[in-house]
Amino acid sequence: MAYFPNISKIQFEGRDSKNPLAFKHYNPDQVVLGKTMKDHLRFAVSYWHTFTGDGTDPFGAGTMLRPWDRYTGMDLAKARVEASFEFFEKLGAPYFCFHDRDIAPEGETLQETNKNLDEIVAMIKEYMKTSDVKLLWNTANMFTNPRFMFGAATTSNADVYAYAAAQVKKALEHAVELGAENYVFWGGREGYESLLNTDVAFELDNLARFYHMAVDYAKEIGFKGQFLIEPKPKEPTKHQYDFDAATTIQFLQKYGLQDHFKLNLEANHATLAGHTFEHELRIARINGMLGSIDANQGDLLLGWDTDEFPTDLYSVTLAMYEILENGGLAPGGVNFDAKVRRTSFEPEDLFYAHIAGMDSFAIGLKVAAKLIEDKVIDNILEERYATFKTGIGADIVAGKANFKTLEEYALKNNKIELKSGRIENIRNILNQYLLSVE
Amino acid sequence: MAYFPNISKIQFEGRDSKNPLAFKHYNPDQVVLGKTMKDHLRFAVSYWHTFTGDGTDPFGAGTMLRPWDRYTGMDLAKARVEASFEFFEKLGAPYFCFHDRDIAPEGETLQETNKNLDEIVAMIKEYMKTSDVKLLWNTANMFTNPRFMFGAATTSNADVYAYAAAQVKKALEHAVELGAENYVFWGGREGYESLLNTDVAFELDNLARFYHMAVDYAKEIGFKGQFLIEPKPKEPTKHQYDFDAATTIQFLQKYGLQDHFKLNLEANHATLAGHTFEHELRIARINGMLGSIDANQGDLLLGWDTDEFPTDLYSVTLAMYEILENGGLAPGGVNFDAKVRRTSFEPEDLFYAHIAGMDSFAIGLKVAAKLIEDKVIDNILEERYATFKTGIGADIVAGKANFKTLEEYALKNNKIELKSGRIENIRNILNQYLLSVE
Amino acid sequence: MAYFPNISKIQFEGRDSKNPLAFKHYNPDQVVLGKTMKDHLRFAVSYWHTFTGDGTDPFGAGTMLRPWDRYTGMDLAKARVEASFEFFEKLGAPYFCFHDRDIAPEGETLQETNKNLDEIVAMIKEYMKTSDVKLLWNTANMFTNPRFMFGAATTSNADVYAYAAAQVKKALEHAVELGAENYVFWGGREGYESLLNTDVAFELDNLARFYHMAVDYAKEIGFKGQFLIEPKPKEPTKHQYDFDAATTIQFLQKYGLQDHFKLNLEANHATLAGHTFEHELRIARINGMLGSIDANQGDLLLGWDTDEFPTDLYSVTLAMYEILENGGLAPGGVNFDAKVRRTSFEPEDLFYAHIAGMDSFAIGLKVAAKLIEDKVIDNILEERYATFKTGIGADIVAGKANFKTLEEYALKNNKIELKSGRIENIRNILNQYLLSVE
Amino acid sequence: MAYFPNISKIQFEGRDSKNPLAFKHYNPDQVVLGKTMKDHLRFAVSYWHTFTGDGTDPFGAGTMLRPWDRYTGMDLAKARVEASFEFFEKLGAPYFCFHDRDIAPEGETLQETNKNLDEIVAMIKEYMKTSDVKLLWNTANMFTNPRFMFGAATTSNADVYAYAAAQVKKALEHAVELGAENYVFWGGREGYESLLNTDVAFELDNLARFYHMAVDYAKEIGFKGQFLIEPKPKEPTKHQYDFDAATTIQFLQKYGLQDHFKLNLEANHATLAGHTFEHELRIARINGMLGSIDANQGDLLLGWDTDEFPTDLYSVTLAMYEILENGGLAPGGVNFDAKVRRTSFEPEDLFYAHIAGMDSFAIGLKVAAKLIEDKVIDNILEERYATFKTGIGADIVAGKANFKTLEEYALKNNKIELKSGRIENIRNILNQYLLSVE
Repeated sequence: MAYFPNISKIQFEGRDSKNPLAFKHYNPDQVVLGKTMKDHLRFAVSYWHTFTGDGTDPFGAGTMLRPWDRYTGMDLAKARVEASFEFFEKLGAPYFCFHDRDIAPEGETLQETNKNLDEIVAMIKEYMKTSDVKLLWNTANMFTNPRFMFGAATTSNADVYAYAAAQVKKALEHAVELGAENYVFWGGREGYESLLNTDVAFELDNLARFYHMAVDYAKEIGFKGQFLIEPKPKEPTKHQYDFDAATTIQFLQKYGLQDHFKLNLEANHATLAGHTFEHELRIARINGMLGSIDANQGDLLLGWDTDEFPTDLYSVTLAMYEILENGGLAPGGVNFDAKVRRTSFEPEDLFYAHIAGMDSFAIGLKVAAKLIEDKVIDNILEERYATFKTGIGADIVAGKANFKTLEEYALKNNKIELKSGRIENIRNILNQYLLSVE
Repeated sequence: MAYFPNISKIQFEGRDSKNPLAFKHYNPDQVVLGKTMKDHLRFAVSYWHTFTGDGTDPFGAGTMLRPWDRYTGMDLAKARVEASFEFFEKLGAPYFCFHDRDIAPEGETLQETNKNLDEIVAMIKEYMKTSDVKLLWNTANMFTNPRFMFGAATTSNADVYAYAAAQVKKALEHAVELGAENYVFWGGREGYESLLNTDVAFELDNLARFYHMAVDYAKEIGFKGQFLIEPKPKEPTKHQYDFDAATTIQFLQKYGLQDHFKLNLEANHATLAGHTFEHELRIARINGMLGSIDANQGDLLLGWDTDEFPTDLYSVTLAMYEILENGGLAPGGVNFDAKVRRTSFEPEDLFYAHIAGMDSFAIGLKVAAKLIEDKVIDNILEERYATFKTGIGADIVAGKANFKTLEEYALKNNKIELKSGRIENIRNILNQYLLSVE
Repeated sequence: MAYFPNISKIQFEGRDSKNPLAFKHYNPDQVVLGKTMKDHLRFAVSYWHTFTGDGTDPFGAGTMLRPWDRYTGMDLAKARVEASFEFFEKLGAPYFCFHDRDIAPEGETLQETNKNLDEIVAMIKEYMKTSDVKLLWNTANMFTNPRFMFGAATTSNADVYAYAAAQVKKALEHAVELGAENYVFWGGREGYESLLNTDVAFELDNLARFYHMAVDYAKEIGFKGQFLIEPKPKEPTKHQYDFDAATTIQFLQKYGLQDHFKLNLEANHATLAGHTFEHELRIARINGMLGSIDANQGDLLLGWDTDEFPTDLYSVTLAMYEILENGGLAPGGVNFDAKVRRTSFEPEDLFYAHIAGMDSFAIGLKVAAKLIEDKVIDNILEERYATFKTGIGADIVAGKANFKTLEEYALKNNKIELKSGRIENIRNILNQYLLSVE
Repeated sequence: MAYFPNISKIQFEGRDSKNPLAFKHYNPDQVVLGKTMKDHLRFAVSYWHTFTGDGTDPFGAGTMLRPWDRYTGMDLAKARVEASFEFFEKLGAPYFCFHDRDIAPEGETLQETNKNLDEIVAMIKEYMKTSDVKLLWNTANMFTNPRFMFGAATTSNADVYAYAAAQVKKALEHAVELGAENYVFWGGREGYESLLNTDVAFELDNLARFYHMAVDYAKEIGFKGQFLIEPKPKEPTKHQYDFDAATTIQFLQKYGLQDHFKLNLEANHATLAGHTFEHELRIARINGMLGSIDANQGDLLLGWDTDEFPTDLYSVTLAMYEILENGGLAPGGVNFDAKVRRTSFEPEDLFYAHIAGMDSFAIGLKVAAKLIEDKVIDNILEERYATFKTGIGADIVAGKANFKTLEEYALKNNKIELKSGRIENIRNILNQYLLSVE
């Protein structure tokens, strides 16, 4: 039985195609900088937005028309699995991602909840056997249930902490079971609502303990995937502890966890923190912490997480530039943590939206690759920092200078010559590269 | 000769005084929690805003009427010293702070600039001999001169880097000369305008080298003060590397500098970074990095650094709470990095504004002290985190738990009981404390 | 049967009371500026937040413990009515407000929905007979149901427009039935998600037609209450047409509706639009359009509508100042469009929160009244604008000047003398007034 | 003598040109939708940013290298005129714009100031005789001089009001003298810093009086150009009265001025007000008030007016769409109210930046024209609003419906069918159009 009977497998048809259900730029087997697009991009579909999300917003009820909504309970969970694999294959997505609570309903007790979950994981495993689709990462939803209102690993209640530990333990076992290439922590409620009733130091210590236990347990059960933490500054909390890349790295360094974790960076979370997406990628990259991305985009004039499908070609180009400079993302990938607008409520919109996102990233990849091939940025940097290649500059970089030698130099050097940073021209060049994409 | 002939020494007259040129709450010798207000608050006047600032803004010329503006060049610099000591004494401020370029004009060459500076430093030293006023901190202005357009310690030009080193070397020597209790780095242009022409990794490495050289040179010349870094997220740059407390600590940890530096936190910089001031203070405090503060306030509906005098009693109360919990700020203090509005252009406004700020901090101190004496926050926290004192909670804190023991516990524990966080009532209590200040 | 069995009627006990379930400042019968606090403030409880809201947020399920939640369907609706009147009376709130869909569940058809609604309205009417509580305003919820995904009076679908008209018609009839003193329009989805698929001009024309029909129908059925429009800039839409006070007035002027409507202004909506609450009140007041307020507060560091209970004493003082200068709000009032935090999930929190809000407004009223009695602002304004009382200034105000007479004057007048705006001192005075409240 | 000796006239060379000092898309004589690019775009150079601006920012001194900076006083003013005409001609800009104080220095008295100004205006008039360059608009700078610290037409001081009137009178005379096609009011200081010392109602009445005087005087001296008001929400003031398009239109309607003014809309001012540029253009357009634009762009992650050269192709495309739908801008135009970054300090950067802006607008024009030719948006709208073309929808639009007929219809109409808004697909289509520009 088909959940999307009117949709055929999405094909690459090239930029002149008028078919809205075709790729115009994403050609999985096309080689760019020595690697196929598919291998560069490692696209994943988010289970929550695409198969569980219903279009609810803070002022409105669900709007989404979904062919599986005639079912309930475990039947619904199973129908979603069936629909999801049909979707992955028709779209040609090589990966997917899920939270535990996306795929199976909670029961009355943790035992029952785990039983539901095991049953669906077994079903997914069966589907994966006859499919090329792989699990990019899974995670535990420790923010929806009211028990997590004060946090999970940073809760003020020890029973909740234990519950969260049990939940992640099970999720790690499923990660092994399904061959997940990564495991993600997004601490939606790991933060505070008010400093007036929060012991931040205590909560952060507990969070570190939790991560250490996760690392230990992963080792024990042979989970080889990459651990990832996903920063976000706020929402639903007033302040989330993993505010941004730098804050998260500070935490990991402080608690001796930096070798066990990388970051899963999201575009919309970056902008909510006051950063561009490429900034967050750069910070992670230069600290050796760029692991994976949640591809989406926000609306910079809105102050909440809109999780829109990424279509801004500037943002995806600069993101792909960082990713290429990082040597790619593997074992991470490009996960569409994006939802169709509440008004794009028809099943076809799921395809339109993913096509828009995948074509946009394919364009970004091509433009970024061309910038790299032509050494556009490299040449700019080489010229700008040239004075550090010789003389006093080389001494500084080599660690041979000190305040006294530098003062001596400065007192003799009365004329400093600077060169324009040329931003306006560089932006114009970026536009030319964008428009010249084939 | 008096620069403020109409102003007498500002006295404490109590809350019922109608005299606008009197303190209503700041009573320097009043003891609060075992220490005088003066010792708790360690107020400093900022030389730049008070004696050098002229009211210029991006759309308007200077407006300030200053009695010393009849002078120019070194005469102006000297008149400002005279005026400043008159001001410190009339106000009763125990400390002041300055940038090198605030106190003396730049010359044609670095030699001449240094000569000007040495002359004024000598004059200040003389004034300090007959005054109780001390130097809380000094710093080097490495952002105004065009040579720093691409940064100082993160510049793209090695000659500029050398110049900056020479400038800080001289500033450290003056810190020793004047007995500065701290030395501050605010990297106004240490950041970027665009990632397209910036090698962030290289610039951060250079910044770390610079700080190491500063630490080495301070040791060499016997500077015993505390080094402080002042975070700010942006402005004038698009992105400043010392974005906020966490980011700055991450940098210091990465480069092995964390034992040599603490933070100088500014209220308006906190809010520009998307944080409350008390958040930044808390993050610094729990990392052992809270050194000093720049007291001011921003306008949360405006996106730039307004540096207003602090009068928001909520903000100062919560700031003083963190400071008291930190065991005070010494050798740091409360520096008014605040400027009178461009329309408060009369000399008297300098007094009105400082009185407003000092009285506000005195109120904040008294309210925070009462909250602590009455254990208001302590009791809230003790109750909220009680489950971590015994049983499974105590095991977690003691490091005796792991995912298996926690799962075992969770599977047996079917009923989790949470208690309301009571934020609304806590805020109401805070209002009662505020209104009951004597 | 009691829904809040542990709560007695909340009494005024004065500022020294330690009872958290007592008013410390709100003394309904206390006379301020010639009128009782009760008459000044005209407090209303919002049915939606207090009796229907469950604590759901975009990342979490409902948390609220509500004694009426053992019921479903119409039984639940009736239980809420019972509970609400118990609440109103125990709290001593003179007014309440509701949306049609808060009080009764939707049925399968509009007929059934209306039948449910009529039944509950009849029940409320019975309760009102034996209670002093009155209906400040009612309104129609035209944003939750999926049919309104593209708007109601600005929808792209004519059937939805007709449905919305039918819904408001019924709501107006209920307004008459229950003696509502006002009727509110908040156009939660009257706006757009993207200009790319929106005909703004057409939608605004339709909105004006809708309001004209409402005015006509109100006249026909004898509704004498005040029509109010509640501006909000965004959320859930990208852009809401009633962005702020000025935008809404522009719309009303353009379509000849300004005599039939006033504004219901909300604090949190003001700040989302980039304005202070007092700014919005001022703009409405000087245009004769200040009708009523939705009392709450946002968090200026968060970009969404948090609808917190108002406890910021600066904001409520300045709001009450505008309200007093407006000659009060009647027939409007102070409606607590505020919700307890998701973590304040116990029934008692509803009392704590309303007490916090009511005491805060009572404080604001007392401080504002004192500022007015002492002519604090009046004196400042009189001095600042004095030059417009005589000579050329008086000519300007009288309309006797023109560019030629003014140039002639200016060419002869070589010395302009300005006086400081004294903001810092004025803020300090405001603090003194705040702290001196009895 | 040439001020830009190394620059030849900028030519159109097509998209494959590698010459950075050539247009790749702006081909002035190319016909698009029946009109030349030159006539569509009516580009103007801003005198202030390009010839007067020096790169000062709130934390730094001027950086710009300008060949005319060897002069001072009136000689400098004259050198700038010479340089500007060389620049206009080499760039091929058909228009320019200036503030009175950009072109000539203020003297000791208004008489002397006017004399300086008259002299430069005469010189400009001479240059215009032998040039094709025309004056798009002029304006009066009533924000830089300290006398305007409290506003000009909304000042608290009558002498300042008179001075401002004299200044605008002179500017209008120069507008006639130079054949300005428009006259602009940007009220940089027409707003407030604090409501605590501001009589908003009085100041707005005075502003209206001022505008009426301007209209009268323009009529008297035969100025036929269009009056324009430029909205901005804030900066330098806390709140500027002309907050955005809707607010400004509200003011004009209230005071009976709407037939005498249109709006000059700026991209960066739009985003500071929380709107997209295209939103502001749309609001003005549908109210018949779209007069001219200030072309630039802001950085949405920064909270101040950055006035960057416009290179975001999305923004310029959507702006050009609104402009084309408006039937063009004439007598208004596209004025580059944009400044080179402080680090783009070389004279050549002025050319690079204008080329970037002009090419971007040319691309935007071509994409928008193609969208219109292909009826992309028209078809979307026609389908979305189809239900208003017949039946009940047509009745609504024709004014034949009322709440009773609509209720009757709604009660019979149990099934409402909506169609997806298809935003994701529409955005993808927009990307295809962008990339297919020739």
